[in-house]
Amino acid sequence: MVLTVKQLILNDAIQEIIDNVLSVSGELDPKNIEEMTGLLQSSKNVFVMGLGRSGLVARAFAMRLMHLGISVYVVGETTTPALSPEDCLLAISGSGETFSIISAAEIAHKRGTKIIAVTSYVDSTLGEMADLVVHIKGRTKIDSEKNYITRQINGKHQSLSPMGTLFEVTSLIFLDGLIAQLMIELGKTEEDMKARHTLIE
Amino acid sequence: MVLTVKQLILNDAIQEIIDNVLSVSGELDPKNIEEMTGLLQSSKNVFVMGLGRSGLVARAFAMRLMHLGISVYVVGETTTPALSPEDCLLAISGSGETFSIISAAEIAHKRGTKIIAVTSYVDSTLGEMADLVVHIKGRTKIDSEKNYITRQINGKHQSLSPMGTLFEVTSLIFLDGLIAQLMIELGKTEEDMKARHTLIE
Amino acid sequence: MVLTVKQLILNDAIQEIIDNVLSVSGELDPKNIEEMTGLLQSSKNVFVMGLGRSGLVARAFAMRLMHLGISVYVVGETTTPALSPEDCLLAISGSGETFSIISAAEIAHKRGTKIIAVTSYVDSTLGEMADLVVHIKGRTKIDSEKNYITRQINGKHQSLSPMGTLFEVTSLIFLDGLIAQLMIELGKTEEDMKARHTLIE
Amino acid sequence: MVLTVKQLILNDAIQEIIDNVLSVSGELDPKNIEEMTGLLQSSKNVFVMGLGRSGLVARAFAMRLMHLGISVYVVGETTTPALSPEDCLLAISGSGETFSIISAAEIAHKRGTKIIAVTSYVDSTLGEMADLVVHIKGRTKIDSEKNYITRQINGKHQSLSPMGTLFEVTSLIFLDGLIAQLMIELGKTEEDMKARHTLIE
Repeated sequence: MVLTVKQLILNDAIQEIIDNVLSVSGELDPKNIEEMTGLLQSSKNVFVMGLGRSGLVARAFAMRLMHLGISVYVVGETTTPALSPEDCLLAISGSGETFSIISAAEIAHKRGTKIIAVTSYVDSTLGEMADLVVHIKGRTKIDSEKNYITRQINGKHQSLSPMGTLFEVTSLIFLDGLIAQLMIELGKTEEDMKARHTLIE
Repeated sequence: MVLTVKQLILNDAIQEIIDNVLSVSGELDPKNIEEMTGLLQSSKNVFVMGLGRSGLVARAFAMRLMHLGISVYVVGETTTPALSPEDCLLAISGSGETFSIISAAEIAHKRGTKIIAVTSYVDSTLGEMADLVVHIKGRTKIDSEKNYITRQINGKHQSLSPMGTLFEVTSLIFLDGLIAQLMIELGKTEEDMKARHTLIE
Repeated sequence: MVLTVKQLILNDAIQEIIDNVLSVSGELDPKNIEEMTGLLQSSKNVFVMGLGRSGLVARAFAMRLMHLGISVYVVGETTTPALSPEDCLLAISGSGETFSIISAAEIAHKRGTKIIAVTSYVDSTLGEMADLVVHIKGRTKIDSEKNYITRQINGKHQSLSPMGTLFEVTSLIFLDGLIAQLMIELGKTEEDMKARHTLIE
Repeated sequence: MVLTVKQLILNDAIQEIIDNVLSVSGELDPKNIEEMTGLLQSSKNVFVMGLGRSGLVARAFAMRLMHLGISVYVVGETTTPALSPEDCLLAISGSGETFSIISAAEIAHKRGTKIIAVTSYVDSTLGEMADLVVHIKGRTKIDSEKNYITRQINGKHQSLSPMGTLFEVTSLIFLDGLIAQLMIELGKTEEDMKARHTLIE
């Protein structure tokens, strides 16, 4: 099989994502992760929130938390109740400056709800407000400029991971890793999880 | 920094996902990909569909197609119109046997709408109905049994990637690679994509 | 103020809806309603379901049930768990023949979950499967033919309540009436409901 | 059939809704409605928005606009693009002060997108920002106090239409009336609408 230029672009893009995942994975702080799984388990309800594709990542995580038997709600869905001081809010925002996320975090803060931020910018508004911050590197502004110059030199003008792609995919994989962690900590098997999986397909 | 057992589980789970992505990426057929990007570009409208977390992957892909200026709808969302023979339906289902996906594919087939299947089982009902099949390996049943025995021997009884996780995450990364491919083919820059990105955050 | 023809059409359409609501309201069976509020209160979880605009009506009802402190889920939303025999499924379908509703009802039936049908056709597939049927008349097929002829004679070719409009709006108002009923039965005040209303706007 | 107290509550609640609909319907300004249907037809795309149950009303309206062949998007759904100056934003908010609605309206205003407000408060922040305001009376604060006293005297402590119920249902019926109006203005039949209705059920 002769590889075409086309496939190389797709494979390059996939490699760019994997490189970011590996880089983030290598820098994770075990204590930080332990605090996060602890907070997710001790909260009465977990609320998750994100805008756009970060919101889809939040939902994918929420689905697995539900399978684990953790009481979880997606902010903005139909039957999501009010926040309480015994709950925690997991907010996903690459920039940490998404308007609706910040204003939700402010409401959570006033209610005494604990906030977990998943963001590329630890010192963003969201990062500063959070009780616990998980740092998920995406394409930083500096990287993006560097790439731009390197790519111009190499004749590649396009980014292979447009907008928040690196942050979003890396967050999803990190959170799926956290699910594996929670399965062990909670002593749940895949069979337990399947038993809570919706039957309606 | 001393790595705890806890972090190893999370990192093992992440590695399991990356291994699957690399394995799928290495086996992609350039001709298959070329046909897929061709069909996505030549269709009047692209409809995407998936159940559960596969549905979230479908949405994440649809968002980027919209950013590229391709007319795209998510089956089941409010303003999604009827299928026509000039459209294509991209259906994501690991098993290829998801009930609601099959019945939607049957309706699409009757209307003369082209079907793209993203599935782990090329010879599933969905795979057999599709005009184009992209094979995204997940955890196969055989693997899962093998793992079960190996893990029992090693004293690890839990799966690190429960249910459809490997298929879902690998599909997302494959489809994000396809977006990079489409950017080049359509001559779109990230700036073009940002111009179509929703302003309301 | 001189009324234009345009406003008359809009007001005629509104009147057509009100007439249907009053007609349905006048024929409600108190015993049927008592059974329904009883089942909603005694179920461990209430699941609601509907397709298209009927699905929006189901969500509007679910939101108020949540405000009343009843554990309620919308089928298809992110964190909706599996059905159990202690739950009930409220399915809204004008025709009572909507494909995905029927197949969900079959799954519910097998699980031993009680089914409440809100439909215009008591003897439809959904109606026959349900433990409790609430009859909400919409525009029947006979009415629609009659109207067609009458309207041709009168030079009005258009329906003022296209498709499921009468059924959907009447169902919403009926279910909002049921919320008033449940407030009294549960001894809940508006303040109680506001306390559970989402704070994030 | 002997009417029980229970049914009277439900029927009283339904009557309260109908009274509000009739009152609003009687005060509609034909010129206002003509401007609204004109703006909906002349816009390149219509964007609809609402929070909670008002958001469901917005979606129910959007579905019918799509059936009429008008290009329409729901703010926050997956494939909704950026606003442009040729578009209009229909925002539904009883109070006219919903935080996320106001901030979306500000973005729309900056982009030169026309704003239609459906609200109970013409002089609210949203009402003041809008190019066109449709006044849909709900339960006003004064009414609510009056009711409270009257009801205490009468021994009825509960509201029969909690929170935004009157506004939401009345808005839905008004907008369904507008669909009838648009059918005539656009010369569309129910058959035309059915042809665009999703086939996947």
